[in-house]
Amino acid sequence: MMATAGGDVAAGKAKSGVCAACHGPAGVAMIPIYPNLAGQQEQYLVSALKAYKAKQRTGGQAPIMQGQAAALSDADIANLAAYYASLK
Amino acid sequence: MMATAGGDVAAGKAKSGVCAACHGPAGVAMIPIYPNLAGQQEQYLVSALKAYKAKQRTGGQAPIMQGQAAALSDADIANLAAYYASLK
Repeated sequence: MMATAGGDVAAGKAKSGVCAACHGPAGVAMIPIYPNLAGQQEQYLVSALKAYKAKQRTGGQAPIMQGQAAALSDADIANLAAYYASLK
Repeated sequence: MMATAGGDVAAGKAKSGVCAACHGPAGVAMIPIYPNLAGQQEQYLVSALKAYKAKQRTGGQAPIMQGQAAALSDADIANLAAYYASLK
């Protein structure tokens, strides 16, 4: 798999198992309160994950995502963003 | 245009002029740091707009969206969410 501007799509796919529980196996959310990620803008995905990691997003479902993002390294974030941006 | 579970798609489209500047005329972002909105989950869009309105999202581009969301009523939010969710 080709790496896009930032992350590595294959590494992102490998890391996306836990994400699929809410965001769906192909990045289309299973539960309507969770966002679809497939085909989302890569830079936006990085910015959103970093906002959760920095606890700059609160309210609603944010606490769940804060917990998830806390465990991600910058490389994980770049790879996940590249993977989901690559999905149609 | 049919109204979806929550908002009115036509009213949302009418309200979406200012959104298009960053999120694109068809909900595909013009600038990669802004999210695509086309086909996003309607309930997620409502939740995200309300989080910006309540200033529960900070950091990154959030200040811009806080300003935009502050001017939206709950009906505007429901209509915009229905409109963007209806786009493919």
